Amino acid sequence: MKLSQSFFYTLRENAKDEDSISSNLLVRAGMIKKTSNGIYMIMPMGKKVLAKIENIIREEMDAKGAQELLMPALIPEDVYVQSGRRDAFGSNMFSLNDRYMKRYVLGPTHEELFAVAASMNGKSYKDYPYNLYQIQTKYRDETRPRYGLIRVREFIMKDAYTFDIDEKGLDVAYQKMYDAYCRIFDRLGLEYKIVKADTGAMGGLLSEEYQAISSIGEDTIVGCEGCDFSSNLEITEVIDTTEESQEKEKEMHLMETPNAKTIEEVAAFFGKEANDFVKTLIYNVDGKIVAFCIPGDRELNETKVLKLLGANEMELASFEDVEKVTHAKVGFAGPIGIDCPVYLDRQVLHKKNFIVGANKTDHHIENVNIKDFDYVKAADLCQVKEGNVCPVCGKKLTFQHGIEVGNLFKLGTKYSTSMNLLYTDANNQLQPVWMGSYGIGLERCMAAVVEQHNDASGIIWPAEIAPFKLAIVPVSAKDEQQVSIANALYEYCQSKKYDVLLDDRNERPGVKFKDMELIGIPYRITVGRGIQNGNVEFVTRANGEKTEISLEDIKARIDAIYAK
Amino acid sequence: MKLSQSFFYTLRENAKDEDSISSNLLVRAGMIKKTSNGIYMIMPMGKKVLAKIENIIREEMDAKGAQELLMPALIPEDVYVQSGRRDAFGSNMFSLNDRYMKRYVLGPTHEELFAVAASMNGKSYKDYPYNLYQIQTKYRDETRPRYGLIRVREFIMKDAYTFDIDEKGLDVAYQKMYDAYCRIFDRLGLEYKIVKADTGAMGGLLSEEYQAISSIGEDTIVGCEGCDFSSNLEITEVIDTTEESQEKEKEMHLMETPNAKTIEEVAAFFGKEANDFVKTLIYNVDGKIVAFCIPGDRELNETKVLKLLGANEMELASFEDVEKVTHAKVGFAGPIGIDCPVYLDRQVLHKKNFIVGANKTDHHIENVNIKDFDYVKAADLCQVKEGNVCPVCGKKLTFQHGIEVGNLFKLGTKYSTSMNLLYTDANNQLQPVWMGSYGIGLERCMAAVVEQHNDASGIIWPAEIAPFKLAIVPVSAKDEQQVSIANALYEYCQSKKYDVLLDDRNERPGVKFKDMELIGIPYRITVGRGIQNGNVEFVTRANGEKTEISLEDIKARIDAIYAK
Repeated sequence: MKLSQSFFYTLRENAKDEDSISSNLLVRAGMIKKTSNGIYMIMPMGKKVLAKIENIIREEMDAKGAQELLMPALIPEDVYVQSGRRDAFGSNMFSLNDRYMKRYVLGPTHEELFAVAASMNGKSYKDYPYNLYQIQTKYRDETRPRYGLIRVREFIMKDAYTFDIDEKGLDVAYQKMYDAYCRIFDRLGLEYKIVKADTGAMGGLLSEEYQAISSIGEDTIVGCEGCDFSSNLEITEVIDTTEESQEKEKEMHLMETPNAKTIEEVAAFFGKEANDFVKTLIYNVDGKIVAFCIPGDRELNETKVLKLLGANEMELASFEDVEKVTHAKVGFAGPIGIDCPVYLDRQVLHKKNFIVGANKTDHHIENVNIKDFDYVKAADLCQVKEGNVCPVCGKKLTFQHGIEVGNLFKLGTKYSTSMNLLYTDANNQLQPVWMGSYGIGLERCMAAVVEQHNDASGIIWPAEIAPFKLAIVPVSAKDEQQVSIANALYEYCQSKKYDVLLDDRNERPGVKFKDMELIGIPYRITVGRGIQNGNVEFVTRANGEKTEISLEDIKARIDAIYAK
Repeated sequence: MKLSQSFFYTLRENAKDEDSISSNLLVRAGMIKKTSNGIYMIMPMGKKVLAKIENIIREEMDAKGAQELLMPALIPEDVYVQSGRRDAFGSNMFSLNDRYMKRYVLGPTHEELFAVAASMNGKSYKDYPYNLYQIQTKYRDETRPRYGLIRVREFIMKDAYTFDIDEKGLDVAYQKMYDAYCRIFDRLGLEYKIVKADTGAMGGLLSEEYQAISSIGEDTIVGCEGCDFSSNLEITEVIDTTEESQEKEKEMHLMETPNAKTIEEVAAFFGKEANDFVKTLIYNVDGKIVAFCIPGDRELNETKVLKLLGANEMELASFEDVEKVTHAKVGFAGPIGIDCPVYLDRQVLHKKNFIVGANKTDHHIENVNIKDFDYVKAADLCQVKEGNVCPVCGKKLTFQHGIEVGNLFKLGTKYSTSMNLLYTDANNQLQPVWMGSYGIGLERCMAAVVEQHNDASGIIWPAEIAPFKLAIVPVSAKDEQQVSIANALYEYCQSKKYDVLLDDRNERPGVKFKDMELIGIPYRITVGRGIQNGNVEFVTRANGEKTEISLEDIKARIDAIYAK
């Protein structure tokens, strides 16, 4: 591509409304442009990258025998009602009426329609297995879109679904996708970890995530200093290492604690530590008010709570609701005499003589013990902390942040049952099909690569997904010799069908170099004064290395770049 | 692809809810499946065809220097309000609220956003021209989706937009797209005509359509037996050949015409011809009631009316509204004393002593003349008829039906003005950019090809877009020699990266042949008993021709197929 004759721009200034390195660089490189909150145009230079990512994914999917199809995004709402997911998605799903007031949604993921599609082929066990996928636009009405392409409301997803007659078949299909994903993310140049994760609204038997390591990652990846344990914070078990207290249970004692509401304030008041307290958190869980009692130095893990209660959504209860169930001002909730069900973190079971809120304004109770109140159930409800004990080897847990770029789900028979995808087995009995579901967010991959591959000058694309592997830059557009040699090299690349960029703009060399660095072209040939000695300069973006290469040798160097 | 290990199905029965040959065949061939009214899944076998169509389009666009990008489908409604098109699209545009009640639409076409994108590059006249395009999903809430993929509510469109500094530049850009489209539709194997068309809601200076000839085409293409005139019926001028009547104007005369409402009934009553009448049609045009007087033997052309009145939508007025402006029952409307504006077809100007409705129930008026009533304007308001006079050469017009598969619009400065896409000219003055817009509907192309290329056995894909060019079919999956030779030929194709289908299913040969014919594979190699003499059978789908070819020669034949 000749830059002088192309649509091309870069921005010198940082983007004012972007909150991540990748989004700022992609906007400045003229690769994306925001159209509204969480929605972007992919501009020509960005589209070239996205197309390369798409091709890598397609190649690796096809290599595993997956077959591509294409689903609509506009789906009758009934479809999600039938599978029972309409409520689980809630307002995360865009919904609309058509002109005849029929209800539609914009598909956030396509398990249901793929089950319908699959039913066209698979009547008998002999028709299985197969793997169907699409590369298609998804819609999710995120509460808080952010980090540019990382959390958006419209994006392209590769979603694949496998269909097998039993769990063993699903295991094989799942492993194939696991391997394909490793190849895909390796080729994208991502540093990633594969972690066990929550099955969430998707349901099913197992979920694993591919997490691109990044400080802005919204997921916390739990690892271990002693073994290869790897898990999403959301589901990591807190190993209960609390020793049974040998204290004698004392008598409860109501204490006035004026102006002390937070754990810190109350601890200061009593002269105690945070873990001498049991804090009571009151939530609205799918419309019902529920209290959770956990050690004072821990955080509640909402994923664990939702799973335990079989619920879809939870948020902190309103002040009104808190005052209703505690009969006190906010800040003094406790398990004794509260007017709602109480769930207990299992670590509390080992505690004795702890302090809780009194359900009375400006009061706490000392020396409380398990026998002093009722609770529905005790379970693992808390967030694990860095340095906690590894559930596998007992050594210390470590934390990293990750961007979820892909996931794998062993769905089992959940969707085949609800969508009536059945096959006839060898004994002529109807059986539900075993499904798996596998997703990759394309724009998110693009952003994650930029988060991992950049420097002060801009993006550093891995060669396989760079918009162009090579840029040829004549230093002066007015120097006939430079222009003619740059053109000759360009023609050479064209003749070999190498996707190359010729920066033939009439701009100062600094502007051209800066642009090529900002948009992250991996290799640059600068045609400058050196040609008087028969040399051009070969620059590697990743390490800034510059070498003089003679005109005789440069074509071999170019061939080497494109041979990879 | 080995069929035995693939997701593949065909249907023996005709589809019950499909109203065209193409949709029935595509459904039966397992290429598409309806999910709701006017919305389809593209199944794996269909996706292969669609991908080939997409590649042809991309190649031809890239060859003209167009640059690909990708726009979102979810667009703030404001964008269309700014351009003034929100009302023009009306309920044809899907609209919705996001979770924060911000108003969005699903893009039916993207002139507005491309103008926004273009503004990122083009500040100076030196930055032009350029051509940007995308291959992206569009949404239109059609009143009556029909004919399978021909009139759908969600579909993929290649939409391109050109940006130039003046009309001359636009002419050049337009011609490039004209040429690219001819190449695209030629490669798709479509028989088509290029016709002048209405600029409609799009606006602009000129529009041409690529119409694939088909009896189910919803557009009437007007041609001429004498010259190469070609135009959409919607905009074809009715040449006014009415001779000035030499009759003397007579006195008006009110006549009771009981039970005679239609032109035919009234003509029978008066013993006259339909063209002795001037009929008065009453419409609701953008909410206002308007009457149109046209010759009794003509039909009103709504496109011409909308253009004349600068209106967006029109429909026949309700009975209530008709009775309100005529003060009579429906069926007796006339221009004399009617309570709404009257527009006249210009042919009426030459008529004398005609018959009109009396605006009085069961009455008409004879001997009416132009001087007897008021009208706003006389213009060409009628539909042209087959056999009418050609506006260019005066010979007879001919009619064909067409499916609009592509269109070209010279938009001029309409969108650049409304969306503020300006450039600085050589004199440092701000000027609006000249835009063109160019669309191709991908699924519609696919359907149009099937409408033109089919027979009683199924689809006959042109080789360049067939899902596979060649199918290899061993007659018996149990005959070791047949299977081994079929496999060897399949391996040969695989080694050459030829996209080939091996029908290795354990099915009767009739079933396999029928399936290959239904899905329209252009060439088939049947490996049957002939191999005992060293021969396979080579079958050409289009003409049913069968030839025995020796195993020595067959590879050369295969190479020849893929060389094209």
